Amino acid sequence: MSSLLLYNIGSLASPRSENAPRLSGVAMSNIYTEQNVAILVENGIITRIGASADLEKEAIVAERFDAKGMTALPGFVDSHTHTVFGGNRANEFAMRSAGKTYQEIAAAGGGILSTMNATRKASHEELYAIGKKRLDAMLRHGTTTVEIKSGYGLDTASELKILEVIHELSRTHPMTIVPTFLGAHAFPPEYKNDREGYVQLVCNEMLPVVKERNLAVFCDIFCEQNYFSLEHSERILRTAQELGFKLKLHADQLSASGASALGVRLGAVSVDHLECTTSEGVEIIAASETIATGLPGASLFLNHPYPPLRALIDVGGTVALATDFNPGSSVTFSMPMMMTLASTQMRMTPEEALTASTLNGAAALSLAHERGSLELGKQADILLCDIAHFYELSYHFGMNHIVHVIKHGKVVV
Amino acid sequence: MSSLLLYNIGSLASPRSENAPRLSGVAMSNIYTEQNVAILVENGIITRIGASADLEKEAIVAERFDAKGMTALPGFVDSHTHTVFGGNRANEFAMRSAGKTYQEIAAAGGGILSTMNATRKASHEELYAIGKKRLDAMLRHGTTTVEIKSGYGLDTASELKILEVIHELSRTHPMTIVPTFLGAHAFPPEYKNDREGYVQLVCNEMLPVVKERNLAVFCDIFCEQNYFSLEHSERILRTAQELGFKLKLHADQLSASGASALGVRLGAVSVDHLECTTSEGVEIIAASETIATGLPGASLFLNHPYPPLRALIDVGGTVALATDFNPGSSVTFSMPMMMTLASTQMRMTPEEALTASTLNGAAALSLAHERGSLELGKQADILLCDIAHFYELSYHFGMNHIVHVIKHGKVVV
Repeated sequence: MSSLLLYNIGSLASPRSENAPRLSGVAMSNIYTEQNVAILVENGIITRIGASADLEKEAIVAERFDAKGMTALPGFVDSHTHTVFGGNRANEFAMRSAGKTYQEIAAAGGGILSTMNATRKASHEELYAIGKKRLDAMLRHGTTTVEIKSGYGLDTASELKILEVIHELSRTHPMTIVPTFLGAHAFPPEYKNDREGYVQLVCNEMLPVVKERNLAVFCDIFCEQNYFSLEHSERILRTAQELGFKLKLHADQLSASGASALGVRLGAVSVDHLECTTSEGVEIIAASETIATGLPGASLFLNHPYPPLRALIDVGGTVALATDFNPGSSVTFSMPMMMTLASTQMRMTPEEALTASTLNGAAALSLAHERGSLELGKQADILLCDIAHFYELSYHFGMNHIVHVIKHGKVVV
Repeated sequence: MSSLLLYNIGSLASPRSENAPRLSGVAMSNIYTEQNVAILVENGIITRIGASADLEKEAIVAERFDAKGMTALPGFVDSHTHTVFGGNRANEFAMRSAGKTYQEIAAAGGGILSTMNATRKASHEELYAIGKKRLDAMLRHGTTTVEIKSGYGLDTASELKILEVIHELSRTHPMTIVPTFLGAHAFPPEYKNDREGYVQLVCNEMLPVVKERNLAVFCDIFCEQNYFSLEHSERILRTAQELGFKLKLHADQLSASGASALGVRLGAVSVDHLECTTSEGVEIIAASETIATGLPGASLFLNHPYPPLRALIDVGGTVALATDFNPGSSVTFSMPMMMTLASTQMRMTPEEALTASTLNGAAALSLAHERGSLELGKQADILLCDIAHFYELSYHFGMNHIVHVIKHGKVVV
């Protein structure tokens, strides 16, 4: 049995869920804090949290780690990313700042299809190397569990290549990785004039083979005007559900398409984006078990409206935050930056933002039973931060306060 | 003579000013880029920039530093900060996210006066230690020249204490530090009902003693409703000008007070904030020699409008960017984050944002003749960044891409 005593923790802050699978509405403020504590980890699981002086005396451990008075938090769970892709679209950032629209950039060869071309061309090894470098940086910024979507392949072989890279990263990287199939991210050029044909390809070929090879837990879709219609989305999602995939949706990002209501109706684990969700949509989501995942990095990056997360919490909804890391609309690894945006742009309190970035992120990946909070029986995914109070994580923005990362009870940063 | 050869620079990007004291309007896009170059530094000054292979052969140097293919940029000049203060206002961040207004927080004992109390209580040694820690972090994030204001003392002894701390930091820290007297930051409680009395104290006691001890280069003022009126501001600034101080103003932050026009009329080096500057104000500033300094961190942090920097550049103005680092309205050290906000929220191109954060920041401190760009004869304040193109600095946000910092020709990070 391996064990670790993390002692001399100045301050600890974590959602307190007491085995609830998520925290909703006012319960999102259930942050407990302790001073001068230690955490005992056995076989990667938190088995004791108590006064540092007591645990130092009592615990017989193989390894001791001095937290030097730092603040301990649960590792972040980034439940929506597109981390494995080729190419670079920094030039589009410059074009957009010079006044070009997303549509004009796409017409000039940019957008999702530009990344699709670079990703199709990249080898498994190249994508693995890129993905590993990104995951290393995410881990240094405190993310210990990450969801990664395919969706820049858009043909069967390329989608499988991306998912296999994710699978290899999952086997070799300290991070916990949850794979999502997003074949329905855009229509590839081959099916530009045959949308029905691509939907059939996704349903009849991609989904079955992804399932057969066990390469994804979730199926996601970009339900939006000029992307996948409500009708196409429902067909793809129902097919995925019948095959045993859990569901996610890119919903209401550019228009109030009704995608979030579709997600709720199908029992999706989460509906993500929600920039254009109406007050009616807010009520529908909040009344359901579906988690509302806000991606404020995309709002900042594209200068779009922020999602109505305040309203969702106020009516009892379950809100998660994620980075949406991708080359076109949110290029960041930083969950604390999402927390800063949540508090400054959407009036979420730091308590709510912490719950949304940890426990509820885990819930959006159906992992809240095992991670997302510092509680007995949970996986020991722990951050040590050079701050006196967890508020400073989002208050003092634009820098990395995380000094050490403990993953499954091992110090990995 | 000390010398340094910085070789194997993959890519170099810098404003090209050719000894102009600033770049205005369309000239703000004058970024030159070079690939595979080296920089020769002699006695802290850039004396050659050329093909890496050539300089490696020709230059006889005491020290060589391998840039390992990284991107070189001029060090950032953060021309507006309040870096030396006591206390912590993370709790106010939480209060504001929970819906309290700035006014309600001030009434509950928060705001500038909360920091004033903590700063008055702190010893010189305490403030020095805090200031040093902050400057170390700023330097790691690429700032090589910083302006620091007093203004949390608000009595003669405390204002002098802050300026003496800034002076000691300036003597001991690698960073170039420009001190600014901001006695007129707010009315202290002792003068709550005697504003005229405080203005007289600033004019008749503080300014002369600060000048006599040579503790500040600039005089700044918070010209705003409920702070310093246009009339009080003009009296203080004229007194300062007669004593030989250069001028800056906190202008048009919360209302279109006419402060920027006052600044232009008095020949201020810069007018800062400008969130509420009208189109008439834009024309007045752009037609003058006065620099418009935008502080987008404050807009993000307080969820206020962004200043009209796009309009200012379009009509030929000179724009700088700065962090406004302070405990109440912008808690960040990151100039790249300001560049991200400039491009995403104000449609400044990455080229304009780079000029605004380097050369024009130096111009806002009357230092553009000696720093702010990588050109022959300039101080060797150089950043080495782990990016392939300078666009990535603002494109990939929320993380620190700076690996090494060279200050006056010495590798300090």
